[in-house]
Amino acid sequence: MKKVKIYVTLRESVLDPQGSAVMGALHTMGYNEVADVRIGKYLELQVDDSERALDVIVKEMCEKLLTNTVIEDYRYDVEEAVSK
Amino acid sequence: MKKVKIYVTLRESVLDPQGSAVMGALHTMGYNEVADVRIGKYLELQVDDSERALDVIVKEMCEKLLTNTVIEDYRYDVEEAVSK
Repeated sequence: MKKVKIYVTLRESVLDPQGSAVMGALHTMGYNEVADVRIGKYLELQVDDSERALDVIVKEMCEKLLTNTVIEDYRYDVEEAVSK
Repeated sequence: MKKVKIYVTLRESVLDPQGSAVMGALHTMGYNEVADVRIGKYLELQVDDSERALDVIVKEMCEKLLTNTVIEDYRYDVEEAVSK
């Protein structure tokens, strides 16, 4: 079993109103050092070993369901899952 | 200027209905290898250098605004921001 960590971020050219709102709140709270905030998604998948190549199915899942590739970029890391 | 990457995840003991819904959708699409999905947030902050220690202000921002520490855990990485 593998643990796949997927990071989904808005593309550079896309406005991030949620990030702007959080930055405004941080400034109001006195954290004026913060120059930019961008908010994305973080997904952790546990994937059983199968005949299909992991890279192939992760890319398919990201492009078909997990991200909107028109406005979002994604990257992912794979690590061996620790059994509990 | 530093780039701070913050990963916010639900605590292990907290149910993740959004993750369950995504897992159901992936199974419907034929990705039966996926055994678990957990969904969290990913934040990228650009923070200007200041007199305050970065670790201190990042922890404060996370605990006061960015996360709900009752149900969420967070971790973060700091890297040197690349100027554009």
